[in-house]
Amino acid sequence: MAKFTRHVEKIVQEDPRRVIHSLKVGFALTLVSLLYYLQPLYKSFGISAMWAIITVLLVFEFSAGATIGKCLNRGLATLVASALALGALHLASIPGKHVEPILIGMFVFVQAVASTFIRFLPKVKASYDYGMLIFILTFCLVSISGIRTNEIFELACMRILTIFIGGSTSVIVSILVYPVWAGEDLHKLVAQNIEKLGKFLEAFADEFSNKSSSVAESQNDGLFLSGLNSVLDSKNNEETLANFASWEPRHGQFAYRYPWKQYLKIGNLTRQCACRLEALGGYLNSKIQAPEETNGTIQEALSEMSSESGKALKQLARAIETMTRPLSPNLRVENLKIELKNQKSLLKSNGYLLQAIPVAVVASLLIDIAICVENIEEAINELAS
Amino acid sequence: MAKFTRHVEKIVQEDPRRVIHSLKVGFALTLVSLLYYLQPLYKSFGISAMWAIITVLLVFEFSAGATIGKCLNRGLATLVASALALGALHLASIPGKHVEPILIGMFVFVQAVASTFIRFLPKVKASYDYGMLIFILTFCLVSISGIRTNEIFELACMRILTIFIGGSTSVIVSILVYPVWAGEDLHKLVAQNIEKLGKFLEAFADEFSNKSSSVAESQNDGLFLSGLNSVLDSKNNEETLANFASWEPRHGQFAYRYPWKQYLKIGNLTRQCACRLEALGGYLNSKIQAPEETNGTIQEALSEMSSESGKALKQLARAIETMTRPLSPNLRVENLKIELKNQKSLLKSNGYLLQAIPVAVVASLLIDIAICVENIEEAINELAS
Repeated sequence: MAKFTRHVEKIVQEDPRRVIHSLKVGFALTLVSLLYYLQPLYKSFGISAMWAIITVLLVFEFSAGATIGKCLNRGLATLVASALALGALHLASIPGKHVEPILIGMFVFVQAVASTFIRFLPKVKASYDYGMLIFILTFCLVSISGIRTNEIFELACMRILTIFIGGSTSVIVSILVYPVWAGEDLHKLVAQNIEKLGKFLEAFADEFSNKSSSVAESQNDGLFLSGLNSVLDSKNNEETLANFASWEPRHGQFAYRYPWKQYLKIGNLTRQCACRLEALGGYLNSKIQAPEETNGTIQEALSEMSSESGKALKQLARAIETMTRPLSPNLRVENLKIELKNQKSLLKSNGYLLQAIPVAVVASLLIDIAICVENIEEAINELAS
Repeated sequence: MAKFTRHVEKIVQEDPRRVIHSLKVGFALTLVSLLYYLQPLYKSFGISAMWAIITVLLVFEFSAGATIGKCLNRGLATLVASALALGALHLASIPGKHVEPILIGMFVFVQAVASTFIRFLPKVKASYDYGMLIFILTFCLVSISGIRTNEIFELACMRILTIFIGGSTSVIVSILVYPVWAGEDLHKLVAQNIEKLGKFLEAFADEFSNKSSSVAESQNDGLFLSGLNSVLDSKNNEETLANFASWEPRHGQFAYRYPWKQYLKIGNLTRQCACRLEALGGYLNSKIQAPEETNGTIQEALSEMSSESGKALKQLARAIETMTRPLSPNLRVENLKIELKNQKSLLKSNGYLLQAIPVAVVASLLIDIAICVENIEEAINELAS
């Protein structure tokens, strides 16, 4: 029990909006169950009111975008499938009563096979998977029930109406009561990931120049490496959020059809950079020492470069967060470019510095990382313009 | 239209089992719709037969594991939620007819809020998310309908029976007709990913020693780098498959409760290695030349090492595929270890070789990669023992 409480506390701390979301679901559900509780409403809807409840439970998602997407999917799929199923019923009834069930069975089979297959198309899977599922479901239910009842048209209309009530209740509650915007989450996630890389580089610089104490180091190492892993694993999360965000209307600073794809591009570049940092992380604990004769100049220069890259990344993260165009020309990144040139020539001219391989590796990886930073800046500028 | 056909062809080529899956869904659906078509069956089930159709459409997934998991989730959740809802109805009826709807409304609200929140627990989200959704749905439907009908107990029993029919039909069709095992897919995916890395290293070795022609190179580069990306992006896919696989009964060479988690560990190590390879890939096109005075010895040695690592990886991939314990002591990896030692001392003793940084970087990354390979071997051996 104590363990469960700790789990719950952790979930709430991670994102307090989860509590609000749970309350919102309860509220929306209570609203649509009034269709059952109140006699006049129940008189007009009957047990079709059940579909409003089912709809709320199935379409109410954490973010507004996901809710709207599922709602539109469900609504459109129900409409189209009902119409097609009614058409199929009419077609099947022409040859006579005995052939009807056989024809309907064939229609259902062919439609289910075709639609299930279409769900494998990557584009459909990404945005319309739920709609396809509801399409198959509705087509089957309407056409198969049609064999047994003559009031199928009224039934279909009633069902569409109740689904509309359930869906619109969900969307309204989701948008009006403490809305969670997937677009905003994506925006923050991308900025945070870049900031994590920046922090990692700064910590690396500190450690490299032996500024930090060794106790703090070992604590930081785990912390920063796990941060790096979370960046590397964020691809799927980012894609899901971008998909949800594409359904969202204008909110805050984000217009409808904001270029969310650009965030994915920035995210990919960030992960590429994180990959290099992970390779660099392997040298964190190896206590790299440049050859004695350099008197620490190379160590200092590399540390400087790492810290410059880190600061540039943090500045870029802030630029995303505040949605300002990175200072243009971005002074920090310009500095970095000059630094990069200096380093390259320093490394070339000082052949003797390279007697220790790890230093050379770190230097090269840092040059790579600096290039990554430039690429990220370019992508962000593209977003801002 | 021509574009659509091409899309379809591509999907079928990628995995022909998709066509079979679509046919299986159609078949299972036709089987359960017999409950509607055949008069004697319809007499006993009535419109509750609808729930068998809904169940088939909602639980029938591509792999047997996913189908079984959803089926068990749905079945158990329906049972527990129905029982609790009937209990709640009884409780609410005690104070009198007027208070009943209010009490039920409160129960529904509290249950929906609590259950929605529980869905955020990581463990629940991973394996029981669908079950929780069905739990909320069933509890609401049964308790709210209970206000309006007195035959709620019969209704609940009938619904559970039809869900059982739909679920078992799905599971039986899924397992008996050309089954798709998530465990087998995971097994193949992990092996393929390791093989991709091996191929990449071998291609790198060829290019490094300038064996391959430059035309083939540039074609290969893109191909191998995209292979690398697919390895880096496979984490989510692997986790999903491992989750599904945990529901699967004994099949082929895989026992029930096979240590699927170990595959995830191997997968993580593979991705770590791929990260290093990606860093290495940055040097693919830079036409690295070691200083003249080495007469190509260092180039040859590094190429040798890359190719050794590649062969070791390919052998490990084969060992996974054939489920044999990697030849123990694995000769290939033993070779690699000796090679690694040689390289390290060669690099240390030949300070003059390191006048060109890129060579040093490549050497170091290759040493890293060799260590990655060893780690992967260890993890595979752990699985085999």
